[in-house]
Amino acid sequence: MQSVYPFLGVDWGGNTFVGSAVPFGMVKLGPDMESFDSQPSKFGYMSGGRILGFSHLHLSGAAGKYGNILVAPVTGPLDLTDIKSPRTDETNRPGYYAAKLTRYNVRAELTSTRRVGIHRYTFPSSDESHLTLNIAHCLNKGTGTESQRFLGGELHVLSNYDVEGVGRYAGGWNKGGEYKIYFYMVLDTPASSTQTWSGDTLSPATDASIDGDHPIGAAFNFHTRTGQIVQAKVGISFISTQQARENVQQETPAWGFDQVRRSSVSMWDQALSKIQLHGEADSKRIQFYTAMYHTMLMPSDRTEENPNWQSTEPYYDDYYAIWDTFRSSGPLLTLIAPNRQRDLIRSLIDIYRHTGYMPDARSGNDNGRTQGGSNADVVVADAYVKGLTGIDYRTAFEAMLKDASVPPANAQKEGRGGILDYNAKGYVTLADERSGSRTVEYAYDDYAIAEVACGLNRPAEAKLFAARAHNWENLWDKDLAVEGFKGFLRPRNPNGSWATPNMLVRGTWPDFFYEGDLWTYSLYAPQDVRKLIALAGGNETFVHRLDNIFYKQHFDVTNEPGFLIPLLYDWAGRPDKTAEVVNALLEKAFTDQRSGIPGNDDSGAMSSWFIFQSLGFYPNAGQDMYLIGTPSFPEADITLSSGKVLHLIAHNMDSEHINRYIQSATLNGIPLDRAWFRHSQIAEGGTLVFTMGSAPTGWGKTVPPPSLSDPAAPLCSAAQ
Amino acid sequence: MQSVYPFLGVDWGGNTFVGSAVPFGMVKLGPDMESFDSQPSKFGYMSGGRILGFSHLHLSGAAGKYGNILVAPVTGPLDLTDIKSPRTDETNRPGYYAAKLTRYNVRAELTSTRRVGIHRYTFPSSDESHLTLNIAHCLNKGTGTESQRFLGGELHVLSNYDVEGVGRYAGGWNKGGEYKIYFYMVLDTPASSTQTWSGDTLSPATDASIDGDHPIGAAFNFHTRTGQIVQAKVGISFISTQQARENVQQETPAWGFDQVRRSSVSMWDQALSKIQLHGEADSKRIQFYTAMYHTMLMPSDRTEENPNWQSTEPYYDDYYAIWDTFRSSGPLLTLIAPNRQRDLIRSLIDIYRHTGYMPDARSGNDNGRTQGGSNADVVVADAYVKGLTGIDYRTAFEAMLKDASVPPANAQKEGRGGILDYNAKGYVTLADERSGSRTVEYAYDDYAIAEVACGLNRPAEAKLFAARAHNWENLWDKDLAVEGFKGFLRPRNPNGSWATPNMLVRGTWPDFFYEGDLWTYSLYAPQDVRKLIALAGGNETFVHRLDNIFYKQHFDVTNEPGFLIPLLYDWAGRPDKTAEVVNALLEKAFTDQRSGIPGNDDSGAMSSWFIFQSLGFYPNAGQDMYLIGTPSFPEADITLSSGKVLHLIAHNMDSEHINRYIQSATLNGIPLDRAWFRHSQIAEGGTLVFTMGSAPTGWGKTVPPPSLSDPAAPLCSAAQ
Repeated sequence: MQSVYPFLGVDWGGNTFVGSAVPFGMVKLGPDMESFDSQPSKFGYMSGGRILGFSHLHLSGAAGKYGNILVAPVTGPLDLTDIKSPRTDETNRPGYYAAKLTRYNVRAELTSTRRVGIHRYTFPSSDESHLTLNIAHCLNKGTGTESQRFLGGELHVLSNYDVEGVGRYAGGWNKGGEYKIYFYMVLDTPASSTQTWSGDTLSPATDASIDGDHPIGAAFNFHTRTGQIVQAKVGISFISTQQARENVQQETPAWGFDQVRRSSVSMWDQALSKIQLHGEADSKRIQFYTAMYHTMLMPSDRTEENPNWQSTEPYYDDYYAIWDTFRSSGPLLTLIAPNRQRDLIRSLIDIYRHTGYMPDARSGNDNGRTQGGSNADVVVADAYVKGLTGIDYRTAFEAMLKDASVPPANAQKEGRGGILDYNAKGYVTLADERSGSRTVEYAYDDYAIAEVACGLNRPAEAKLFAARAHNWENLWDKDLAVEGFKGFLRPRNPNGSWATPNMLVRGTWPDFFYEGDLWTYSLYAPQDVRKLIALAGGNETFVHRLDNIFYKQHFDVTNEPGFLIPLLYDWAGRPDKTAEVVNALLEKAFTDQRSGIPGNDDSGAMSSWFIFQSLGFYPNAGQDMYLIGTPSFPEADITLSSGKVLHLIAHNMDSEHINRYIQSATLNGIPLDRAWFRHSQIAEGGTLVFTMGSAPTGWGKTVPPPSLSDPAAPLCSAAQ
Repeated sequence: MQSVYPFLGVDWGGNTFVGSAVPFGMVKLGPDMESFDSQPSKFGYMSGGRILGFSHLHLSGAAGKYGNILVAPVTGPLDLTDIKSPRTDETNRPGYYAAKLTRYNVRAELTSTRRVGIHRYTFPSSDESHLTLNIAHCLNKGTGTESQRFLGGELHVLSNYDVEGVGRYAGGWNKGGEYKIYFYMVLDTPASSTQTWSGDTLSPATDASIDGDHPIGAAFNFHTRTGQIVQAKVGISFISTQQARENVQQETPAWGFDQVRRSSVSMWDQALSKIQLHGEADSKRIQFYTAMYHTMLMPSDRTEENPNWQSTEPYYDDYYAIWDTFRSSGPLLTLIAPNRQRDLIRSLIDIYRHTGYMPDARSGNDNGRTQGGSNADVVVADAYVKGLTGIDYRTAFEAMLKDASVPPANAQKEGRGGILDYNAKGYVTLADERSGSRTVEYAYDDYAIAEVACGLNRPAEAKLFAARAHNWENLWDKDLAVEGFKGFLRPRNPNGSWATPNMLVRGTWPDFFYEGDLWTYSLYAPQDVRKLIALAGGNETFVHRLDNIFYKQHFDVTNEPGFLIPLLYDWAGRPDKTAEVVNALLEKAFTDQRSGIPGNDDSGAMSSWFIFQSLGFYPNAGQDMYLIGTPSFPEADITLSSGKVLHLIAHNMDSEHINRYIQSATLNGIPLDRAWFRHSQIAEGGTLVFTMGSAPTGWGKTVPPPSLSDPAAPLCSAAQ
């Protein structure tokens, strides 16, 4: 995919992965860099700095986990405390990474399969060439609550061309427990000698082991001639060294670096070809396909690599976090990769079976950290209302009911914190952290439960949770006024009284909201925007309030809680303003540069927002509904399941996107005068045609999208 | 200049001018658009909306003034209440604008000289073609304190091919008094009939006049055949209709649209060719030359068009505002267009002679609105210490002394508000608005006065104002702690006691700072960063504080008060961090798109920041000093006055700018191991060579830039 530029988003906090991986691959093999002040970068890669080596597990758009099993070539005397090099001629393509390590005059190339990293190093002429393996290295080491810890490990040099072992690690952003990484590394070139270290000194011993965070590793030493290539295959497993060795034998039996690269590229070609653009500018194409690439790096497919239980179900890890991805990544996969989304949901259900909860976040085989609600409920509902089959929805429903009723032992790990208060009083109180964002998210999660309950013919639960879907209104203080607008969320004390504003903390209350402010969370009611508008004073006031949010920069494009806000104009009869705002955000916040993502990509969440908005429509996750914004491409073909195609056509599109306003639209030849449509209307494919113009018109203003409190909208869209 | 893209910055609040103008031209002829909700856009142009017509005076990167003498073609019945059209095929180049008005099927083309707008309209076949002239139109009409008002006007149709008249206007952002725009419009095609209106109805009368904000205008009616061209020349004057007519005769005697366009283009070519880039990417070249274009639209050259006094000095208006431009626009002109900067300063001095003050802002021939300090003092000092000749520095010094000693009758209009307190107590108190930003700016303005005093051999004033240059320290509360950092500006009550924090207002005090926050203004001491670092706890703490400002997004790249902050790392021995931050800002905040400027361009202030930072160095305005950041181009040649050339070379530059860290540098062949240099070192031209690399080194860390409290730095750099 020449259109994919993996460096897009590495700067400006996008934190996207750089290296080689197959789609959703377990192994993400890439460089770890030394950051300022000589610490390893928390994220692995950074644009400026020196390369410490190449490790096999990474996240994308997420911080401070993994970076395990570091391989680094060295020439000259081997100083264990000083292995690092500036680099030049750096390249990254899907399934391929290369750079020249200038200090060592070694060219490094990487490719990978799902569970194996392939290294190809081209050495200079040197009597002291080394290939080092470092088990003690991992990202974001330290003593902070989000830091990783190296607990110890062991390795065994089996011959002068292979070595196996294990490293034990814990912690990281999700505060997870211990996880073990087994490895088997085999070289295509016998070394002239081997060494190991446990502690600070090199020894000729073939075995090494260490407890606690002390150095441990191995070195394979060579006399190399100019241009001599040394290759290594590194099998990774969460099960055993034996499994790591079998992964190498299964996935890369031969020594074919280029063949592995080609098969990795073809996997990407297949995955990315689900959406075909026509007539787009180069920079837009690069942005778009790179965004698709970024949405397909995580979660990690760990099927057959689950150390905690045996199962025939798919197993995925690195849900990081569903709170980030449920809004747009999930709906994107449901649309263009339903089989993948099915496997992900089956994996979530299987995790529920064995850990008791569908996680809100999970990494290193451990649930945590929960951000807000139990948003896996929305993921299930989104698949359900869109007719995704092959999922045990009854067990999923069980899991959803548990989310909604059973207080978790550790609310940071899984489940819903403050659920007893919420169920008893209709809101989370200041006795629990994040009581504002939790309350509104729980209310939406409950709406999702009601949808599935209805579809599964569970009328009692349908009624109960449809009622709870109104709970966000219980924290709405109609008299709270800010910047001339009335009606905002306000915390309640455990006794139910309104909390007194404590403006000292980020203009709001400590811990009332998670990663969002009063403006953002007060408008979070995706299930009932009609009611929200009524509470906020009606369409005109609501539109002014949205204008104020964008003009005064209360809108935060760098984080997920506000993802739906630009679309809220559609409910208020101003799709032209949605078009204006979305166009500005796409143009300003996203570019084709290294800084091209405005905030942490959060395993592709930001990228999937960009993808939908660029196509011209955006999902209201968990509902059978897409909101129309403004298309960026003259033409796009989206391949749905089983080869059905949705053709998108935008007539009168200009290169500068002056014609950003929809003048008229048709869906399958029938005039579409609403700024939204249902998934069921395009599930079998079809043709959606927009005619664009440079000035707003009356299009799409008459029939607003559905809302819970809309008498015309039945409770469960899935039932229609 | 094919590399100039005038639409860059029109979106996302850049508010750059779209239309035709010569460098610093008085006439800026461009479209005025209807915005959302059917109001004329405050800024004239906007990407989305309908064109109301083409008016002759505009600002760039500034709001709500002018938009006078609107010419609009119409076909079909003439409805005075509904003259507007969507447009397509829009083009803008320096000195040329064109668009097709789709509703009327008329192609409009504009070009201009300094005081004359040239219109070329290509009509369809129609018995009802009209060219309308609207005097009552102006931008940002309304009753707000920053609104413009149309006070009335008159016009006289002299024949079926020409008309003259005057419009009277007042207000706008600078709250200025009445200004009169005289015009003379002549057509190349006699009309079949003419009409006028004063009020709502069309009449055959040839004269019309109106008092107050009521419609007034004229229409020239034609029977046109397909493709028939009607041209108009519109002379503008602030003196008289006679002068407007003479401007047409002097500047465009013949009917040569293309010739006028060519001469306008050649003026731009000459102005922009002062900096030649080599080896840059297309998008960077477009960004760079468009930025140069944007720095040369304002102030407006009104020489011979000053209605208020006779003078042989140059006369410029639309200083809008010097508070925005003194930081980088002024130093840029001093570097590449010293004659222009000389004329601007002579104009400021002449304005002082006749109005009593050098303005901080001025528009519509009226001083105001003052933003902060009397920063014209810095403009004068910048020219003085850089050896700009041909300026009456003794009179300028008089003006500076008056700024620093005489309370203005209206502090919003000119001079220094709160100056008596400041001089008596050493700081402005909460009794005056903006006491924090004013105090620190006054202190820097006083440093500028001290520099000139020293050069003019006025030792008493030099001593006095060098002492006052320390006054910013009087508002430094060493115990005020925010986010773990100690020492911030804090307001003092009139009795000298510290004000109690009132965190309800934007995390600080009401009116304490102007357009900036506690983080930004607490670091504003360009004259004495060494002392600032000492007060903030030393280099290491200061570096962490700067990191915190950028990581936590306390830095506001969209406004001028923080312009110097990325460079402050240089004083703390971390030019590598300056490089990292500047690189990220250049990559992220600036693009080659319509949204390519992060905030209001403020008559080119943002653009000039971009220009310097892209070249790799940035001025500390008012001082004989440039700070080194990181160059963006492999090679650039800057033509200084009298043909001297400064060659900039960056070795080992890569297209993605990975090699953003300076490894070593030479100036005229001599190693330069400091992250700064003096204007005097390059004033005669020379060669500055950087060698770049992908990782930070020790370069430039040893000798920090000069500071007032540096014993090694003499008081007046100009004296060296």
